[in-house]
Order: sequence, then C-alpha cells, then structure tokens
Amino acid sequence: MTRPPGAGFFTEHTVAELADELRGGRRSPTDLVEHALAAAARLDPSLNAFVTLDEAGARGAARRAADELAAGRDRGPLHGIPVAVKDLVDTAGLRTTMGSRHFADNVPERDAECVRRLREAGAVVVGKTVTHEFAYGPTGDRSATGPARNPYRPAAMSGGSSAGSAVAVAAGIVPLAVGTDTGGSVRIPAACCGIVGLRPTFGAIPGDGVFPLSPTLDAVGPLTRTVADCRLLWRVLADTGPEPDEPPRPRIGWVAPETFHPADDAVTRAARALVPHAEDVAVPNAGTLLSIYGAIHGSDAYAIHAERVARAPELFDEEVLARLRAAEEVRGWEYVRALEDRRRALDTIGSLFADHDLLALPTVPLPAPPVGARTGRIGDTEIDVRTALLSLTSPWSVLGLPALSVPAGMVDGLPVGLQLVAPPGGEELLLSAAEHLG
Amino acid sequence: MTRPPGAGFFTEHTVAELADELRGGRRSPTDLVEHALAAAARLDPSLNAFVTLDEAGARGAARRAADELAAGRDRGPLHGIPVAVKDLVDTAGLRTTMGSRHFADNVPERDAECVRRLREAGAVVVGKTVTHEFAYGPTGDRSATGPARNPYRPAAMSGGSSAGSAVAVAAGIVPLAVGTDTGGSVRIPAACCGIVGLRPTFGAIPGDGVFPLSPTLDAVGPLTRTVADCRLLWRVLADTGPEPDEPPRPRIGWVAPETFHPADDAVTRAARALVPHAEDVAVPNAGTLLSIYGAIHGSDAYAIHAERVARAPELFDEEVLARLRAAEEVRGWEYVRALEDRRRALDTIGSLFADHDLLALPTVPLPAPPVGARTGRIGDTEIDVRTALLSLTSPWSVLGLPALSVPAGMVDGLPVGLQLVAPPGGEELLLSAAEHLG
Repeated sequence: MTRPPGAGFFTEHTVAELADELRGGRRSPTDLVEHALAAAARLDPSLNAFVTLDEAGARGAARRAADELAAGRDRGPLHGIPVAVKDLVDTAGLRTTMGSRHFADNVPERDAECVRRLREAGAVVVGKTVTHEFAYGPTGDRSATGPARNPYRPAAMSGGSSAGSAVAVAAGIVPLAVGTDTGGSVRIPAACCGIVGLRPTFGAIPGDGVFPLSPTLDAVGPLTRTVADCRLLWRVLADTGPEPDEPPRPRIGWVAPETFHPADDAVTRAARALVPHAEDVAVPNAGTLLSIYGAIHGSDAYAIHAERVARAPELFDEEVLARLRAAEEVRGWEYVRALEDRRRALDTIGSLFADHDLLALPTVPLPAPPVGARTGRIGDTEIDVRTALLSLTSPWSVLGLPALSVPAGMVDGLPVGLQLVAPPGGEELLLSAAEHLG
Repeated sequence: MTRPPGAGFFTEHTVAELADELRGGRRSPTDLVEHALAAAARLDPSLNAFVTLDEAGARGAARRAADELAAGRDRGPLHGIPVAVKDLVDTAGLRTTMGSRHFADNVPERDAECVRRLREAGAVVVGKTVTHEFAYGPTGDRSATGPARNPYRPAAMSGGSSAGSAVAVAAGIVPLAVGTDTGGSVRIPAACCGIVGLRPTFGAIPGDGVFPLSPTLDAVGPLTRTVADCRLLWRVLADTGPEPDEPPRPRIGWVAPETFHPADDAVTRAARALVPHAEDVAVPNAGTLLSIYGAIHGSDAYAIHAERVARAPELFDEEVLARLRAAEEVRGWEYVRALEDRRRALDTIGSLFADHDLLALPTVPLPAPPVGARTGRIGDTEIDVRTALLSLTSPWSVLGLPALSVPAGMVDGLPVGLQLVAPPGGEELLLSAAEHLG
C-alpha cells in the first residue's frame, strides 16, 4: 500500500495487529499515544490536520486503558487505540469549534453519542481535526484555522469537509478517525488522501452532539487506512455486533462517472480496474439527483444558520457566507419538489439493486486540485471544483444509501478512490466486497 | 334545528330515516334523486352550489340502486342516498373542473378512491359542487363559475373552499356531501352554513384522485346536516366498521379563540354554551402554529402550480394568482423551519391531551362576511377576512388532528359553529361527544 512521504507510525500497523500487541504486552496504549503525539508534532505544522491536540487528555485516557487491560478489563478491538475526531463533533470538556470563529471558545459539556461509544470501546481520543467551516464545503481548505493539506502533496487540497480526519489517518498520525458526510464529506477526503471512508446508511449512527449541516442528509462515518480497520470502527460507531459473512463475489454494476459529471480518464481507469467483472448499468434521471441535493442541502443549511448570518456575518469565512446567502434564495416550493423527486428516485434506484448487489464508480472524478482552486480542467472541459468534487458522492447521500470509498492507486502522483454503493443496511456487504476486489 | 329559508326536502329527514323508508318500500332511490334535482332546480340559481348536475347519471344510479334493493342486494346505510361531491374530486366520465378555467373541459377516466367507496356503498352521485378555485381560499367566492352563496343570506359568503358542498347540504338539496380540508375547507363552510363538517385525522381517507392543494395537509371529509349522518358518511369514506361506543361525557378543554385571533363575543358565547363543563386550557406557542401553516401550505401549493403559473397565468382567478405569486416567495429554509416547528408543536399539544379527551373552540371567529369581503371588523378590531376564517381551524390541520364542526346556533341571523378537536384517530370520539353536547 502506498504511503505518503514521511508518514507516521500508524501507516505500518493495522488496528488488529496493534490490538494483538497490546494484549501480548509487546506494546501499551501509552506507547501508541506517544507515537500519535510525536507524529502530530512532526507532521502537523505542514499538514494542518488538527485544530486541537489534547495531549494531557490522551495520555490520561491511555493510562486508564493500560490499567484496565492490566487488570483484565478488555473493552474490545479499539481498547487503547488512538482516534481523532472531526471538530464538528462534541467532545466533553474539549474545545469544539466547527471550524468557525463563531465557536472559537466553545467547550461542550457532553460527548456526542458517537464519541461516547468510542470511549466506551476504550478508544483514546487524541484531538480534534480540521473541518471545512461548519462542514459547508468539499474542499477542506476554508476553516478558521486554515486549510488542511494533502499528505501526498501539501500544495494539494485534502478534500473535505472531514479534511483533518482524512489527513491524520493518511499521514499515519492516528489509525482511526471520525468524520461526517453530508454530500461526500467522508468519502471525498478519503479518496483524495488515499484511505478508506464509509458513509453509512442514513440514520445508522446517531447524530446527537454533531453540529448539523443538513439534518436530512448528515451521516457520521469512519475514516481508516484499511478496510478491516474500517469494519472495526464502523461496528463500534453503529453499536452493531459482527454480522454474517457476505458472499465474496457480489454482482457489481458499473456506473459511468459521466452519468453525473465529466471525469479524468486515468481516474476512471484506476477505479474500473478494481472491479473488472462489473457490468455497465445506467442510472436514469441522474441530473435530478444532483439538483435534489442542491435544494435540500441549501435550505437545510440556511435554516441552521439564519440567525447567525443576521447577527454576526463577519465571523463567517467569506466564501461560506456567500454560499449561505445563495442558499437563502432556494424557494420552499423547490424544496417540496426536491423531496418529491427524491421519493421517485428511490423507487427507480431500488430497481437497479434488483440485478446488482452493489454499484461502483470513482469517488471523485479527478485527483485533488491545488489548495484554494475553485476552477480547473478535466480533459478539455472547464470545471467548477466544488461541483466536481461532490458530483459522484452526493447522489447516494440524497438516496440515504451506504457508500464506501477505497484507495484505487495514484494518478499524477495523487491518490484516487473507487466508490461502492449498497442498498440500505449494506455496510457489511460493502466492507466484505472491498476486501475481495480485483 | 334551524333551516334556511325555502330549504329543500333533505332538511326534514335524517339519512337513517330515509334508509328505513327505502327498505320499508315507502320511498325509492329514484324518489330521493328527484327530490334532489327538484331542489337544485329551484335553489341553485340563487345559491350556486353546483358546477355540474348529473341528472342522467344520477337517475341511472338511482334506478340501479332501486333494482338492487328490490333484488335483495343491500349495500348498507348509504344505499340509494343522494350525495354531492366537491369539484376537486375526480368522478369517472363526469367533468371535474377544480373550480378553474385550466380544467374547464377535464373529464377524468377514473373515480377518486373516496368516490369509488361511495358508489360501492350504493350512494348516488348527483353532481359536482363549487370549490374555491383549486381549493386555494377559505371564502368560497372565487371560482370559474362564480361564488357559492350562503343559504341563510345569499349576500353572505358560504365559506370555503368546500363551498358548494356545504351549501347543497345546508339548503337541503342533498343530505350528504364530500369536501376537502387543508386549513379548514370542510369546517369553515360547515360552520358558516350551519351544518356538520368533519376533518379526519391526516391520511385517514385516501386522497387518490383528489387534486392536491398541500399534500402535507390535505384531507377528505364529510359534510352533513346531523352528527348521525356524518358518522354514516365518515365510516364509508374511511372504510371502517362500527367502533365501540365512546364515553358520553369526555373531559373537554376550552381553548379561548383569542389564543389565535380576535373573536366576536356572541360567536364565542354561542360555542361555549354547548360545552358548559369544559375547563379552560392554554395552548402554548399558538402563533407558531399559524406561521407553520403559511409556510407549508404556500410552498406545497406553488409546487403544484409552478408550471401552470408560468404557462397560462391568465387562466387563473386574479386573486388566486396573486396568492400563488406570494407563495412562490416562501424560502426553502422557512419550509424546513416550519417542519421542525411542527414536530415540536406535536409534542406540546400531545401533553394537552393527557388531561383532556377533546379540545373545544369556535370554528370561525365571526359569522359569514359578505361575498367578496376581504376586510372586516370584529368589535373594534380591523381584520383580514381570510386570516380570520382560517385562524381557528388551520392550527389543527398543521398538527394532523381530527376536528369536527357542529352548529352552535345563530349570530346576527347567520349560523356559527363549535369545533371539537381530538387526538389522532379520535373521529368516533368526536362524533359521540357531539351527540351529547350541552
């Protein structure tokens, strides 16, 4: 597996290996935390994955995890494993900024439910990672604490909005991170940074204590280096036990990315190579899925921020503010139409899954653009960067479907991703299929 | 019971009495249809209850109903009983205009599900009644075929939008009619015309084949002269069997109409006199319920009519067109807020029903204003007529609750109504309570 230059300790070990070593006494949770803190100290000045590193809290949690293991109290595979949490997710007593100056000094009293589950499973929260301001952007380069940067090329964007979570895992600072995905905010940075990212079925992981972007679409999801690690983190976040093994050779339908947006041929080839047996399938009314996303997401987001925009517009990033002001203009009847169109699209897509267990397509139609870029080219076509980044992920968000991005090699020196999409509840099928690709 | 001047045959007989007479051979379904057609011929020129009278169809259906009874085929209490249907509800082979020039020549191929149930129960459809254009107005005085008029005073409005259905029943042209209620469109004309009107629990009667105004709020409902007749029609429309008797003395909470809108003291006294044992209750956040209604209803309505407004605005009534154009301006984020506010209001109102079986308040805070009036006075207060008419009914629509309007005597020579509101599924409780009032 490719590693970015100078990558930290955790790119060399799976979580299952580390768990074995912890139980064999060859390592301790405190060793792992020190590896994480040392890698952060070395790499974060250039990558900007973290808003807040909680050195004292992490060391304390690691000591408690070590004491428990020594006393025979074993909380399972994440016990003593470092994890990073997107700074959109409440952590009790630890500053949580939403990437915004509006929340520069916000210290939640309670953990978000997903964080509570992590701690219950013995995971050690190392810090809070950079999010695109209020998660309102797929580029990861607009936040109160500056852009996260791609570990493979710091001049390239990480993708977002779960930018720092992807960077921290890809750079080997932590093995596991939590993100959120509204239109692709877990999958896009996972693809851009060459790691694994899962958007679960809508509602599968509780969103309590997670700052909303679009409550109709928001999902919490894991970012990890390997598919096996992803399974471990998913099961803790969703509070589900092991599921029966899925068939290793599911019927996969290939969705041409041009269904939704122009795509870089090399990216398409890299993704397609991982699913050589996939049959081409057509997705009807694809353009409708993209416009549904815009209407729902915009109205939902402005409903969250209306008073904040009125009261203190100067505290917003100017690009985020401009996007909110555009979102304010979406009409109620367009929102109503979008909900109707979504109901119809669900029926249509349901029929695609009658003949295929999974759908496959690239996660993002191009490698990570430069930090700050808002226009670009794919072949001869001028593109809008935000539109392009979201084009292949947001349709599945609209439909509430689980989708997994896995690394699909490198294009022009940067990672690219393959995305697999399943019917509702198909997370284990996605993970199983991803381990048997090619 | 008060009758309007010159009222037709059906103000003198309940449906149960007529059903007895049909089975005893003292009358036949064809007699009843002739009574209906004769009353329509005499009264409709001044009242304008009907868009279309289907004399041939009604006579044919009455003959078949008579033949069936003669042959021992008894379809139940509505067998052979004349019924009128709001011209917003599809009737196979019979013109259905929605009160609009857009549908002046529209002849549906299929019956709406509620009409299919009526025919299955043996009811005889006599004709289609005037609706406020596209049901978009509570006054009943704007339609392609002119205003319906109040049987008690033809210069007064009938209330709407199920205007002609209420007029046809109040004037004794038919004993039963079908209407639709979005913000009060069954209850308001029932109150203004001195009859009984039931808005059922949202979703209790299928809306298939009924032209939508706001699919989030629309309900089909019966209009009848007596509560007992209402029960018979409700059970056919909802396809429910007889339910166990409800306690005759439910705990009733009185909601002061001023919670929502200024009210005429005489109207309030007349309604309050029917529920002497009611205890006063407070409805929190009442203003929110009214604003929720505006945002949802406006966005839903414009989503239905957007293409029609763009293509042929000149075919709309100008007042309805102006209201649609205002509805176009509601923002998506306001719609989102309205849905959120509704969820919160449902929790609040649920707690009111912990201590009371039913809520009671006037149906409309003033007697029917003159046809065409858009402003008026209640005491010293200038009022907007549409706002006033909807003010006491739309809150329960927003909450999806069943509500029944029953006659509460006369004020200034015009009927006024008492409204009872129940928790979801409480239609039989409403009907039982209404029979034991006072």
